[in-house]
Amino acid sequence: MATFSRLVRFLAKDGRTYYGDAILPPGVTDIGKITQARVLRGSPWSKFEVTDRIADVRLLLTPLDRSDIGTVRCLGLNYAEHAKESGNPLPKYPVLFYKPITAVTGPFDPIPLSSPTLEVEGVDYECELVAIIGKECRGVSESEALDYVAGYTVGNDVSHREWQKYRGGSQWSLGKGYDGWAPMGPGIVSSKIIKDPQKLRIMTKLNGRVVQDSNTADMIFGVAETISFLSQGHTLLPGDLIFTGTPQGVGMAMNPPLYMKDGDVVEVYLEGVGSCVNTVENEKPRPRL
Amino acid sequence: MATFSRLVRFLAKDGRTYYGDAILPPGVTDIGKITQARVLRGSPWSKFEVTDRIADVRLLLTPLDRSDIGTVRCLGLNYAEHAKESGNPLPKYPVLFYKPITAVTGPFDPIPLSSPTLEVEGVDYECELVAIIGKECRGVSESEALDYVAGYTVGNDVSHREWQKYRGGSQWSLGKGYDGWAPMGPGIVSSKIIKDPQKLRIMTKLNGRVVQDSNTADMIFGVAETISFLSQGHTLLPGDLIFTGTPQGVGMAMNPPLYMKDGDVVEVYLEGVGSCVNTVENEKPRPRL
Repeated sequence: MATFSRLVRFLAKDGRTYYGDAILPPGVTDIGKITQARVLRGSPWSKFEVTDRIADVRLLLTPLDRSDIGTVRCLGLNYAEHAKESGNPLPKYPVLFYKPITAVTGPFDPIPLSSPTLEVEGVDYECELVAIIGKECRGVSESEALDYVAGYTVGNDVSHREWQKYRGGSQWSLGKGYDGWAPMGPGIVSSKIIKDPQKLRIMTKLNGRVVQDSNTADMIFGVAETISFLSQGHTLLPGDLIFTGTPQGVGMAMNPPLYMKDGDVVEVYLEGVGSCVNTVENEKPRPRL
Repeated sequence: MATFSRLVRFLAKDGRTYYGDAILPPGVTDIGKITQARVLRGSPWSKFEVTDRIADVRLLLTPLDRSDIGTVRCLGLNYAEHAKESGNPLPKYPVLFYKPITAVTGPFDPIPLSSPTLEVEGVDYECELVAIIGKECRGVSESEALDYVAGYTVGNDVSHREWQKYRGGSQWSLGKGYDGWAPMGPGIVSSKIIKDPQKLRIMTKLNGRVVQDSNTADMIFGVAETISFLSQGHTLLPGDLIFTGTPQGVGMAMNPPLYMKDGDVVEVYLEGVGSCVNTVENEKPRPRL
């Protein structure tokens, strides 16, 4: 597993897309700033062939091809201060919901606002550490859980509070599942490099202003405990993503609420990984498929 | 789309698995009773090649291979009498949740009870009409929605009420997502054959006793309205499944509650499709993967 250090997928200057291992120039820590990557051939879940080829990066894409992504699981209310600001009690067990694969998008892609999300305001950001399962597992203990993690990235669990909390009829799914509402990247850092996922600074900037600034040490259920819990009676597959919840500072908890709108630039950052930077865009009417 | 009439996937007597078009002998209406199928080659979402070969069926499997299944969406509280028996108001919008692909299993497979589901009672059945998306769509109107349906089958939205309603922290996902908790089949009847999905009898029998007996006419949000709603801002892909909710008669609403246990046989039936018959089985401790 994990035949990479910092996995990226990218459009190269030759106009083709590749998997690659990011080449970090001296002094650069944000994978989003790379200009070159070593080309990898094959699949992250069988085996990569590491090639000799260095390619020039034009644009970083979702770090996993859609065919290499499985189920997208997400936790709610997994930081104590965020549970409080949301008006919820601390959960006794991890609170699970899902996003569809069509929500997953790249580290520099737009976040589209489609017509139902424009009917009423409520589009919010949530920076989250994302763990990527690398090996099939089921019923694993907390002590062995991290052995099944391929790596980590940062994602934005974009959420429409009105659809999530009210129109969704108690279930959060609809308000969190719109196309492009789970941007992630810029790359996946191997669990061989990030050995302890519970001591990483995590932040969101909205139009350059820091709105969330916390540390994964503050999670209620850490990554190992989460994976152990989720794998009881559930098989986790390579390519499954786990968004592990967001810290305090979301827009809905501000007074007045701070919701995102057309043109806003939202950046979610995770220490050791870098930033995923997306522009919110009202969707133009488009021809039917 | 839909180059089949009644799609099955099966283990043949030659020991191999195939897609096939069910051959219904005269007088047989339940796809689960077939003994032969015409072999189909290829994929339901590109094009099937209809072969001359007739194969003998040994066992019907999940009617779609896992690689041909996309996202599994489900509706809650979509029959008025069921919403009442659950103590919930009628929903204003469809109530959406998801199951992971690992929940999907075949029409005659066991429903495993893993250790978390045995900690406390609460395993319930829910017969549901399942619509299978056959063509990518987004933002479709109600009048065109059924054009994107490949066909229909029946499924069982197996649910653990304690985990769903209480331990899940308001979200139903965990208590409905266990491995094998979305059996479906025995086959998928083309939307060319089932032109109106809103007039089909739908039933559950538990150990031979009828416990749910209703008609898809009683859905609050019909299939067309559901697909139109779910496709707003969300791209639906070929192979996406939509479990459309269950009618009244679930075990939790009985007095005392009627929950399923090791050895119970649960049969969900949909008119024009047939029966999906599964045995509930306590999971044996098994070696780690």
